Amino acid sequence: VAFSAAEVQEMTETAGGVIVWGGSTNIVPADDVPIRYEYPLKTNPRGKMLASIMAKKKAAGSDICVIDIPTGPGAKVADETEGRILAGQLIELGKRLDIKVECALTYGGFPIGRDVGVNLEVAEALRILEERDGSGSLVLKSCAVAGIALEMAGVAARGEGADAAMRLIQSGKAHQKMLDIIEIQGGDAKVKSSDLPTGAFSYSVEAPEDGYVISISNRPVIDIVRAAGSPADHGAGIHLHKKVGEPVKKGDTLYTIYADKEWKLSKALKIAEETTPVRISGMLISRVA
Amino acid sequence: VAFSAAEVQEMTETAGGVIVWGGSTNIVPADDVPIRYEYPLKTNPRGKMLASIMAKKKAAGSDICVIDIPTGPGAKVADETEGRILAGQLIELGKRLDIKVECALTYGGFPIGRDVGVNLEVAEALRILEERDGSGSLVLKSCAVAGIALEMAGVAARGEGADAAMRLIQSGKAHQKMLDIIEIQGGDAKVKSSDLPTGAFSYSVEAPEDGYVISISNRPVIDIVRAAGSPADHGAGIHLHKKVGEPVKKGDTLYTIYADKEWKLSKALKIAEETTPVRISGMLISRVA
Repeated sequence: VAFSAAEVQEMTETAGGVIVWGGSTNIVPADDVPIRYEYPLKTNPRGKMLASIMAKKKAAGSDICVIDIPTGPGAKVADETEGRILAGQLIELGKRLDIKVECALTYGGFPIGRDVGVNLEVAEALRILEERDGSGSLVLKSCAVAGIALEMAGVAARGEGADAAMRLIQSGKAHQKMLDIIEIQGGDAKVKSSDLPTGAFSYSVEAPEDGYVISISNRPVIDIVRAAGSPADHGAGIHLHKKVGEPVKKGDTLYTIYADKEWKLSKALKIAEETTPVRISGMLISRVA
Repeated sequence: VAFSAAEVQEMTETAGGVIVWGGSTNIVPADDVPIRYEYPLKTNPRGKMLASIMAKKKAAGSDICVIDIPTGPGAKVADETEGRILAGQLIELGKRLDIKVECALTYGGFPIGRDVGVNLEVAEALRILEERDGSGSLVLKSCAVAGIALEMAGVAARGEGADAAMRLIQSGKAHQKMLDIIEIQGGDAKVKSSDLPTGAFSYSVEAPEDGYVISISNRPVIDIVRAAGSPADHGAGIHLHKKVGEPVKKGDTLYTIYADKEWKLSKALKIAEETTPVRISGMLISRVA
């Protein structure tokens, strides 16, 4: 589906919220064309990125805005210092556009949540809302960021936003609102997380030995997911069965790669073999003799 | 205690092994003096480091040698590529000195084990041998490295060294051998891990909120332990109650700093406040408004 900026505004006023992916709304057409070429080239100059982010907020009619800036090894922003500079620039730009901006510097040194890829990520988010389970890192992070928005909007007192967001999940209100938003955007309001298909082709990678997960690297994960066909193929992606710090036994599934096309799965697997995105073991990376 | 190179050789032949800290054995005196000045300056030129490592192996009479090279953010060696280069240089230098060298590239992006500091580390190692518990990362890593030595010495078949090392711990033989070594070096052969005193002054840092441990940074941990008085003060150090990946509740103890002198504890605490060595939370590092 694709909506105009005016439609997005109207839907926002009716349902109290929308979920849109910038590039498909045609909100800022002058921005989308360069992005289409930058994406495969992996270039994205800083000034361009700032303008691109804020132009969309303005066009969508936002007056309050929280921007999540994940930092850490392999994230777009390498460290906290760089994140603070970027945050300052976004806030400054917001002032000129009359949008109140706050930024959340979060840890993005490894993937948050267990799923990467279009359908996999949507299913993971829906599952959390359905099960009302607030135990994982993804929920904690989402509530921390959403909590800032609730505090800025005056819906929650300062310092109580994250708890308020968590209560919305646990009461089931967040799930109902999500279904309302899906309906107003023309989707199936009865959709369940289990309805979202993952790619027909999949391969599970096993732990080569007993140990602990010592690292999950962003860069290889992104490269694998793209090779598997994401974001064009909605079923493509990775499910991480184990996260950093978890103990594993030899033969346990570390992660599963999904793809809509078999040849893309092969391509993704080749990258997985070359890059070892999930490192486990008795901490021995390699033996040099 | 301090031993001459000849004494170290003799003890090795009797007990089948020794544990020595290079700088206190007076084995390579021309090496120790520069190190004494490099340490506070945090300088250590590569060529000098290679010569320093291998000169001591030669002087101690080693003919087989496994060198552990921890790599990762905040470790001396930043990544696997750099580690492989260093390994190659050590192996080459070994050939010229007639020492068979193999290197283990291990993950050192966060501290392995839960203790840092002289007495704390010794107690942790002794406790593992006493309890014969092989579940932690420290044991897995130690067995992986020791396993290479067992394979090189022909005591274990290729690929079975780590398991052989683990069996030595579980059978109690490793503990008995440790006590033999302690005795021949003039120590108390009845020593227990609980006999090693930690500093009289300590402070425990609590989790500011619910969440998961997302990172433990080497650099701040090292800076805190040094400020607390390590390695000169044997009771100084850190005990990590939580490791990366573990869930924490608000108020749980994250880590405890120990020091022999109160003013050094204050200094260490100040660094802890400034650097946040253990990051937990709903992944929110900071909010910029």
